[in-house]
Amino acid sequence: MQYQAPANDLRFLLFDVLGADRLHELEKYADATPDLISAVIDEAGKLAAEVIQPTNQVGDREGCTYDPETRSVKTPEGFKDAYKKFVEGGWTALDAPLEYGGQGLPHTLKFVVDEMVCSTNLSLGMYPGLTHGAISALHAHGSDELKNIYLEKLISGEWTGTMCLTEPQCGTDLGLIRTRANPNDDGSYAIEGTKIWITGGEHDLVDNIVHLVLAKLPGAPDTTKGISLFVVPKFLPESGERNPAFCGGLEHKMGIKGSATCVMNFEGAKGWLVGEPNDGMRAMFTMMNEARLMVGMQGLGLAEMAYQESLGFARERLQSRSLSGPKNPDGPADPIIVHPDVRRMLMRQKVLNEGMRALALFAGHQLDLSVAHPDETVRESADDLVQLLTPVVKSFLTDEGFNNANTGLQVLGGSGFTTDWPLEQLVRDGRIARIYEGTNGIQAMDLVGRKLSLKGGQLVRTLFGTLSGYLKDNPEAPHREELKNAMKALETATMWLASNAPKDPEQAGAAATPYLRLMALTVIGYLWSRMANVANEQLAAGEGNKPLLESKVVSARFYFERLLPEVDWLLGDIQSGKDSLMAFSDDHWAA
Amino acid sequence: MQYQAPANDLRFLLFDVLGADRLHELEKYADATPDLISAVIDEAGKLAAEVIQPTNQVGDREGCTYDPETRSVKTPEGFKDAYKKFVEGGWTALDAPLEYGGQGLPHTLKFVVDEMVCSTNLSLGMYPGLTHGAISALHAHGSDELKNIYLEKLISGEWTGTMCLTEPQCGTDLGLIRTRANPNDDGSYAIEGTKIWITGGEHDLVDNIVHLVLAKLPGAPDTTKGISLFVVPKFLPESGERNPAFCGGLEHKMGIKGSATCVMNFEGAKGWLVGEPNDGMRAMFTMMNEARLMVGMQGLGLAEMAYQESLGFARERLQSRSLSGPKNPDGPADPIIVHPDVRRMLMRQKVLNEGMRALALFAGHQLDLSVAHPDETVRESADDLVQLLTPVVKSFLTDEGFNNANTGLQVLGGSGFTTDWPLEQLVRDGRIARIYEGTNGIQAMDLVGRKLSLKGGQLVRTLFGTLSGYLKDNPEAPHREELKNAMKALETATMWLASNAPKDPEQAGAAATPYLRLMALTVIGYLWSRMANVANEQLAAGEGNKPLLESKVVSARFYFERLLPEVDWLLGDIQSGKDSLMAFSDDHWAA
Repeated sequence: MQYQAPANDLRFLLFDVLGADRLHELEKYADATPDLISAVIDEAGKLAAEVIQPTNQVGDREGCTYDPETRSVKTPEGFKDAYKKFVEGGWTALDAPLEYGGQGLPHTLKFVVDEMVCSTNLSLGMYPGLTHGAISALHAHGSDELKNIYLEKLISGEWTGTMCLTEPQCGTDLGLIRTRANPNDDGSYAIEGTKIWITGGEHDLVDNIVHLVLAKLPGAPDTTKGISLFVVPKFLPESGERNPAFCGGLEHKMGIKGSATCVMNFEGAKGWLVGEPNDGMRAMFTMMNEARLMVGMQGLGLAEMAYQESLGFARERLQSRSLSGPKNPDGPADPIIVHPDVRRMLMRQKVLNEGMRALALFAGHQLDLSVAHPDETVRESADDLVQLLTPVVKSFLTDEGFNNANTGLQVLGGSGFTTDWPLEQLVRDGRIARIYEGTNGIQAMDLVGRKLSLKGGQLVRTLFGTLSGYLKDNPEAPHREELKNAMKALETATMWLASNAPKDPEQAGAAATPYLRLMALTVIGYLWSRMANVANEQLAAGEGNKPLLESKVVSARFYFERLLPEVDWLLGDIQSGKDSLMAFSDDHWAA
Repeated sequence: MQYQAPANDLRFLLFDVLGADRLHELEKYADATPDLISAVIDEAGKLAAEVIQPTNQVGDREGCTYDPETRSVKTPEGFKDAYKKFVEGGWTALDAPLEYGGQGLPHTLKFVVDEMVCSTNLSLGMYPGLTHGAISALHAHGSDELKNIYLEKLISGEWTGTMCLTEPQCGTDLGLIRTRANPNDDGSYAIEGTKIWITGGEHDLVDNIVHLVLAKLPGAPDTTKGISLFVVPKFLPESGERNPAFCGGLEHKMGIKGSATCVMNFEGAKGWLVGEPNDGMRAMFTMMNEARLMVGMQGLGLAEMAYQESLGFARERLQSRSLSGPKNPDGPADPIIVHPDVRRMLMRQKVLNEGMRALALFAGHQLDLSVAHPDETVRESADDLVQLLTPVVKSFLTDEGFNNANTGLQVLGGSGFTTDWPLEQLVRDGRIARIYEGTNGIQAMDLVGRKLSLKGGQLVRTLFGTLSGYLKDNPEAPHREELKNAMKALETATMWLASNAPKDPEQAGAAATPYLRLMALTVIGYLWSRMANVANEQLAAGEGNKPLLESKVVSARFYFERLLPEVDWLLGDIQSGKDSLMAFSDDHWAA
């Protein structure tokens, strides 16, 4: 089945709900007119369906292969061509800075394209995805000299980038890294150490690969405060000399088999410091925060493809009769979409996917406002929301993206379990997104342990202000009472944390995961109310795409009736505190 | 990591909670003394760890291979040996009828062994698993002649059996089958047709394979009332002649790669009618109901292995410091089990696994009472519970078994996604269990559409009687109020169905999935209260395994605080009715 980009939903969401049709009024985004945004949606959808999707299954079957002789990695058949077309279309440059050859378009558009790429080949999308993070880190923290050497080629897609963080003994806890950077005489550093799980660490799509590597300077403290960031190219840009940063092998994985996940051995490779000594974590978070939002789009992208596949199947597969009488009387049975329990699965996918898309693009739009709005107070509150919602987008979209891909597989029954259909690959590929760029548990800790206390709690106050402002401005807001109940639950949980966590940080750890989920469901509730509100208005005015608007009204009802009420359960979980989690001592676990 | 059978938990559950220590008082199960049950637990655990587990990873890597020349199937390296040891140990005969060489032990013990086999190699377990179903169907419905020919060799494991139901155009809707049975002159039938997804349809573990095949007699009605069951051996037992029942190929699947999932072509193969003409569905359900309980054990078995692996990892992996101060001050970091969010994942696994085990063995014990108790009223109410809970065990244990395997994978982070660890295989293998033997949605429909209305609603009344009887007899039952709340929710939902479903069967379809889940959580709540009750008593008396008993008390608290409250959400979902599920017309789905 050919992928169909959710173009109508995107236009409704961006233009009619979020107000991204006015982005071009901001000086920085003057080019981003509705026509241009619309063209980007259509062109990216075409590229995804026609160029990227055909590489997805072969990428999974073939995987990447490693040649120990040359220490090189071959990507699957078709990846090189598809990547070339992606680069030629300018897609790597979409939101990159103009001064280095980028197009300088809004980040929101980047998210839109990310979703489509991930719907059609997550593995392939990883190569430019990681490059994007490297661009941002270099742009934000690198010297002009480094920027001049690297940015244009990374932005054009002629080179790709990596993030080299993890080592065998440390993933989450980067204070434990052992990779060392010893000063050379020429101002560069000799990087020694082994990094693992390096996406795109070695491959054959481009001529040069630019590694951004966390390492420790001599005498640096043995904590995250002693980490520095270095840029380490595969080939030295001036001389073309091979830098001893070699791939030592590939991981064998459950999914994303077309993405080269490398062991990287830095054998005295030349590197240059990015930013200040011992300040590498800050630069790392520039890459990481952006990567976290992108990983959220991965979860959504896979779930969208699973929805399309399962919807197609449910409309075609004839099995049993409708409980309210035959709907396909001339056929041997009715299509399974007539059955309420099949509809439950399809509706769950559709309503959550659209809600997750709204959440992610709401965050993306705020990101654009935070960098481009002329009013400082708007910029600040937009930045509050982006910071607060980044871990929420990453976790919720990958957890529920995975669940929805599984729901799609379930609609297909036994067929979904076979490799004749793409569902099982979507499930396998999506499993990693709940783990990398910080596990979803780490995201939840970032939210309750860090984001809630930033600026004395201002981030979450900005969120509450946004939601209550909406209710105040819209006395007829659809599902108002249910939304207020969810907001109340989130407020209560926030107060509970504020009074319990400072005395006992383990209370924050115990509450973290349900709290993140409570926030996600509440913000998506706010967005479903807004979507239904716009749909009601347009339907009353006789405007717009009627089936789409009607679907929004029904979908909002489904969300408020069947999904949002989880918030009460989550609040109870949070309020029950840490005791039943922490009571076990060593001898209880396997008694 | 070597599998460790949950022997202590099983003994606590069977002897101290469920009363299976008294099974030997029933004439039929006079041999099943606590000593014998305990020996079975230990021996099966040993077999699983030492013989079966070593075949699991190679089975996944190698898979089954099909040779189109000979139309034969080769199982992975080691399967033949392990199967031989399984047979030699008498495990295929455990609960099989004495008169055909079985050991006649209680079904509960079969479930115990099933869990262990599925923890260590689900694919291998499928071969004897399907055989067991064939034995039951032949024993219940076959003529003495057929029984004499087939039962001994199936029970001894010298031959294996299959269930041939599905065809390309029909899975759930068996009324659509096209396989035909035309009478031969000698009283046999010529079977013509193609069956798909036939587990163990062809393999090299044994000399003969006995297919139980659903087919239609000439002139039979085109519904499920026109289906008959036939026994179709690969080799004719008398002559040794090859019967034209050939494997046409293997499915390629997400998991259970060591299980041969065959396309079977019956090319005029000789078959013999089992039971009455057109009564095949009844015999099929004899196999199916048993298979459904076994599939539940599959979900649990995989989840148990995932728990053990993730617990081991969480105790070893050093990463970050405890929020309440270093717990491993001499090491570079603390083991991740100190972190509340990691404990949340481990506790969820442990508490749900033990709750699911309690539910399954409660049902298994009732099955034994239903066939062996001298008092007819006891037999009848036990049978009520088995019938009611069969779809609940199948669905809930496979849904939550899959979720728990995923939770185990999450504890490992990136390692869990690599094939260096067994977690990703456990997840892939377990995905099918939510689908086969009737998808979990079909189980829910069986529960609300059939089981609730059997005998005028007596089955669910028996359940309520059991639960309220417990509360009446145990005024100090732990977590009494929370359990009562869940029972109230289940009663309310049952009443809602009773008043809405008769007028509109789509209301039953809309409520089915959350209703099944509500029942599962409530019955597991009842069992957690019982387990905690026994634990409290034994702790007060200074008896028993103290760490195990303490773990039960904490686990029950975790269950009642964090898991059971989902029931209120489920009740609301049910009561919101079918409208938001059924409102979409064709043009809304992809507007």
